Amino acid sequence: MNKVQLFNQIQKKRSFLCVGLDPVMELIPEHLLEFENPVLEFNRQIIDATQDLCVAYKPNTAFYECLGLKGWETLQKTKAYIPESLFTIADAKRGDIGNTSNMYAKAFLSEAGEMNFDSITVAPYMGKDSVTPFLGFQDKWVILLALTSNKGHEDFQLLKHDDEFIFEHVLKVSSSWTTDEQMMYVVGATHPESFQKIRSIVPNHFLLVPGVGAQGGDLQSVCKYGLNSKCGLLINAGRSIIFASKGKDFAEKARAEALKLQVEMDLILSAAGL
Amino acid sequence: MNKVQLFNQIQKKRSFLCVGLDPVMELIPEHLLEFENPVLEFNRQIIDATQDLCVAYKPNTAFYECLGLKGWETLQKTKAYIPESLFTIADAKRGDIGNTSNMYAKAFLSEAGEMNFDSITVAPYMGKDSVTPFLGFQDKWVILLALTSNKGHEDFQLLKHDDEFIFEHVLKVSSSWTTDEQMMYVVGATHPESFQKIRSIVPNHFLLVPGVGAQGGDLQSVCKYGLNSKCGLLINAGRSIIFASKGKDFAEKARAEALKLQVEMDLILSAAGL
Repeated sequence: MNKVQLFNQIQKKRSFLCVGLDPVMELIPEHLLEFENPVLEFNRQIIDATQDLCVAYKPNTAFYECLGLKGWETLQKTKAYIPESLFTIADAKRGDIGNTSNMYAKAFLSEAGEMNFDSITVAPYMGKDSVTPFLGFQDKWVILLALTSNKGHEDFQLLKHDDEFIFEHVLKVSSSWTTDEQMMYVVGATHPESFQKIRSIVPNHFLLVPGVGAQGGDLQSVCKYGLNSKCGLLINAGRSIIFASKGKDFAEKARAEALKLQVEMDLILSAAGL
Repeated sequence: MNKVQLFNQIQKKRSFLCVGLDPVMELIPEHLLEFENPVLEFNRQIIDATQDLCVAYKPNTAFYECLGLKGWETLQKTKAYIPESLFTIADAKRGDIGNTSNMYAKAFLSEAGEMNFDSITVAPYMGKDSVTPFLGFQDKWVILLALTSNKGHEDFQLLKHDDEFIFEHVLKVSSSWTTDEQMMYVVGATHPESFQKIRSIVPNHFLLVPGVGAQGGDLQSVCKYGLNSKCGLLINAGRSIIFASKGKDFAEKARAEALKLQVEMDLILSAAGL
């Protein structure tokens, strides 16, 4: 999916919500345990209940890998179940030397592969040749970690080089490797104060923003400085939506949570004339 | 495997060689293509031919993930085939927010899991809470990226904060999170000049050193400053061993390449009185 198509979906659905599909076996509603693959059934029902309210789905590979071979299969089948009009993000945080990153790119982005995601999250520590192999696919995206939502962001992302934070160098340096048609950045909702500076460095890039909801980030604060003329934001909510209820009504409750965010997003888009 | 056991294996085998199990379908000898799982058969024969000459095996997950479901299964079966006396490294370069890293730790290190590796490589960018979940397993290890062997190491690892490189901060800060009984570092053989400084920061930690062989690093230069009183080095060679021949003699030629390194390592250990 290219940038124009993504913005079109946002305008059509009046939403820039991304739903994090990170199932935890212990939190799957009991009545689903009778299915041959409870996690897949859970994901399917979440997707059915939310797909008109969001523009993207983001399964984090960790939650599938910890289920072994069956988990990997569930990830593939979950991806395959997501309608093509939705933007798909493999939240894999990969990155390795060039020829190895090539293999990851093939695994997650290749149209000939079993996954065929629209995008993948990548860690920047190993530099340019660890990232560029993911850029060789038309209308597919790298979403590079910049300023993450967790406490540990303080350890290295906030070290300073020449009076600028390391994460700011990551934005500056990496944005020269390709255009805003192939690169997005992860910026946690837990740092609303940083969005103004970030937008001065990457005014046109889409930002994937986790940390709204369970992690405490606030949608209005993020949008105040994060929104740009093509929206430029994908706000991820995971646990607050998919685990809104552990009962038979889990999908209904997930929809209700997604709807709350979509309604708020509609107002934000309208106020911005988008 | 704990540190004493690893050093015992090194002394017994007169080797600190790690063999990188990174199979590429195009380079698998033709006569193996008739097997039901050519990659697994390739790995098995490499392991049979080299296990008395090395102390560790390091499959990189990228080379399995790009083969889809079958690849994931091959990774599990490869791990299961490695004898218990050898140290196993899941070269996965994972790292995510705390509860997500927990899932990766479960996938790769848990004894109850399908993998049960001795160690996993982890990327440091997301900081402490992205790394510590991997430290909750007895006699299992995190191998944290410090100074990598690729060209891209210049982009962010060599930025300076307070007159020290970012990778030096990674060493200093992360070495306070646990002991040298649970943490190792990745330092590329392509930076022999850096080993002296690195050893002043982490004198006792094991270092996993890729980049000897195909990437151009030199064993003697690395050992000059990298060796410590418990050896402290695992030297990885991948392509130069496993792809030494594409013929029916591939395992024999792989053994010959591993033997060359083992003989050199024996001399280095003896010269150091180890």
